[in-house]
Amino acid sequence: MKHVAILGSTGSIGTSALSVVDAHPDRLRVVGLAAGANAGGLAAQIARYHPRIVALAEGGAAALHATGVPLNAAEVHTGAEGLIAVATHPDVDVVLCASSGTAALEAVLAAIDAGKTIALANKEVLVMAGEVVTEAARRRGVAVLPVDSEHNAIHQCLHGRSASEVTRLVLTASGGPFRSWPAGALRQASAGDALRHPTWQMGRKITIDSATLMNKGLEVIEAHWLFGVTRDQIDVVVHPQSVVHSLVELRDGSMIAQLGVTDMRLPIQYAFSYPERWGGAAPRLDLAACGPLEFHAPDLDRFPCLGLAYQALDAGGTMPVVLNAANEIAVEAFLAERVGFTAISAIIAAAMAAHTVAPATTLAAVRAVDAWAREYSRALVDTRAAETLRMPS
Amino acid sequence: MKHVAILGSTGSIGTSALSVVDAHPDRLRVVGLAAGANAGGLAAQIARYHPRIVALAEGGAAALHATGVPLNAAEVHTGAEGLIAVATHPDVDVVLCASSGTAALEAVLAAIDAGKTIALANKEVLVMAGEVVTEAARRRGVAVLPVDSEHNAIHQCLHGRSASEVTRLVLTASGGPFRSWPAGALRQASAGDALRHPTWQMGRKITIDSATLMNKGLEVIEAHWLFGVTRDQIDVVVHPQSVVHSLVELRDGSMIAQLGVTDMRLPIQYAFSYPERWGGAAPRLDLAACGPLEFHAPDLDRFPCLGLAYQALDAGGTMPVVLNAANEIAVEAFLAERVGFTAISAIIAAAMAAHTVAPATTLAAVRAVDAWAREYSRALVDTRAAETLRMPS
Repeated sequence: MKHVAILGSTGSIGTSALSVVDAHPDRLRVVGLAAGANAGGLAAQIARYHPRIVALAEGGAAALHATGVPLNAAEVHTGAEGLIAVATHPDVDVVLCASSGTAALEAVLAAIDAGKTIALANKEVLVMAGEVVTEAARRRGVAVLPVDSEHNAIHQCLHGRSASEVTRLVLTASGGPFRSWPAGALRQASAGDALRHPTWQMGRKITIDSATLMNKGLEVIEAHWLFGVTRDQIDVVVHPQSVVHSLVELRDGSMIAQLGVTDMRLPIQYAFSYPERWGGAAPRLDLAACGPLEFHAPDLDRFPCLGLAYQALDAGGTMPVVLNAANEIAVEAFLAERVGFTAISAIIAAAMAAHTVAPATTLAAVRAVDAWAREYSRALVDTRAAETLRMPS
Repeated sequence: MKHVAILGSTGSIGTSALSVVDAHPDRLRVVGLAAGANAGGLAAQIARYHPRIVALAEGGAAALHATGVPLNAAEVHTGAEGLIAVATHPDVDVVLCASSGTAALEAVLAAIDAGKTIALANKEVLVMAGEVVTEAARRRGVAVLPVDSEHNAIHQCLHGRSASEVTRLVLTASGGPFRSWPAGALRQASAGDALRHPTWQMGRKITIDSATLMNKGLEVIEAHWLFGVTRDQIDVVVHPQSVVHSLVELRDGSMIAQLGVTDMRLPIQYAFSYPERWGGAAPRLDLAACGPLEFHAPDLDRFPCLGLAYQALDAGGTMPVVLNAANEIAVEAFLAERVGFTAISAIIAAAMAAHTVAPATTLAAVRAVDAWAREYSRALVDTRAAETLRMPS
């Protein structure tokens, strides 16, 4: 029996993780749940899974009680401290970090210090603090298992192969909804257009990141930290069908790929079951029913965010922190219809250009640069939004 | 340094194997070479690789001397005994069995008894004598490493995974030159048509087997013996681009695939290097340049040989021996233009229908059934050829 804590339990990954728990009542037990602001959703999960500890970042016990759902004697926490309390509860074996954004960073580090296995579905943790987190995990002897379908695929392809066998990791990208849009049309792309992802059902922020290819850029940086490979060993290929979840190239020219249906229960379950593999995570893949599988080189001209991520990885240190923070602010502004689609990469590029790289070896350093980059990017957004208002329609 | 013997050194796989040796002079040394009838080819290989022992099945020393090429003091053998002498030479570590047909059966068993690692590129060895060979290898603790691109791919995909993780093996088939021919046209297909294989350059016998899908049928039977899986766990999917060399389905619904260029040096080198992996076997695969990868269910109506192979595996015992022997005779007759393309499966089906399954636990039993099936099939060929001659044109 593995005892799990789920940070971000009411989100897309969190609810998929709970359906994995449902499928394995004899193998998985929910000890902790943490959500952001969805009191009703969390209360319903408490009623169903009887966790020992829960956290609601916004509202805490008062908001949960207001739902009227019985809380089954769960210990209730709130704020950033609540996330840490859930992640470090003594009964927890595996912490699934599925909360979006940077909130989970301290909680993941606390869980590592407490010796928990980390199942990581949050990109920002490694993009912002890859050095801090991987060094802490190495020191504590803790496994950081990737839940992102691409990194999970690479983890499955590597499967005990020695680093010297591996020459390249190839992350597949669906290409997003704008894959075949001409550059000119991208300037007019709306949030609604960007949210129509062709193959994966995901949260809003990650869906926009998928449309800009920043999602893949963040994954390139993650892959660097997860698998200890250099920038030159990480490639991206656009694969619109999302059947091949990623590939590994071996030194003789052979490639190993992981394929499957687009269902997050597959990588989530594998992270929970590892090093074992359990049945029943998702339907079998019917290759003959798949239709042709295409692979294309990504277009860095139309999708500059991917190139910016490689630049941030090249620059190293705190530059990925700026990339990530500026992207969050820019995407938020795009979703609020304050700036256009192509402004996202422009804002990130401007923030990166204004930043001088520093070492990212402490969380304090990371946090300071993150705060600066957000402030700087917000100002860029305000300027752009004001310019747009002034422009003749 | 690994010391190799190559049975079938002048054939398609044999010469590819020698080019792998050329690429790794510090890792591979040719100790033994055996060929069928190509005295000139073998003599040139002796001059270049200085093996300690050689065998020429037809002609032996006399034929080699007649070439005028210096034999560099190589010990020369002939006949079936020669093949065994090469395969069991005390200096040999790995025996690559790349001779076509059934000639190598005794040599492979002798090599297993002598404790050699077997790199197996010959299908008939396992199709005819799967039980005898795998039992001998198990008893002697000898590895039988597959060189066929499909089984080599599966071997790479399995890579240390436990049997309980694996639910299905999926062998890919190019579909051969007649993949999209209508059933009616197949009756008129000539040997010339069948020899135009779309993706792989191979010998004549295996190219015809590829056109009938018998090649895949034999591979299904081989997979059963190599990987210890049941018939229901082995599927075939037609994949005309031959980029995915085969796949393994795992119990959670995930699939692992091996991909690469269509170059036999890749699987040959991996069999030589295993459990290591060396560089430089073949060019890297450029996924973006591949074009769409298609997967279709095989059409057992147009290609009944695949169904016959499954039937033979179901029947077990000596039935695969009959399948293989009848196929060899029928393909030989087709290549000699004595019978048509669709007669191949008809002859095999008739021979199988006439056979009562017996245990295939000794080489003597296998050989006896093999001899019977060949004789029976030759008579079927003669009858059909005579009928064709009598038919009004």
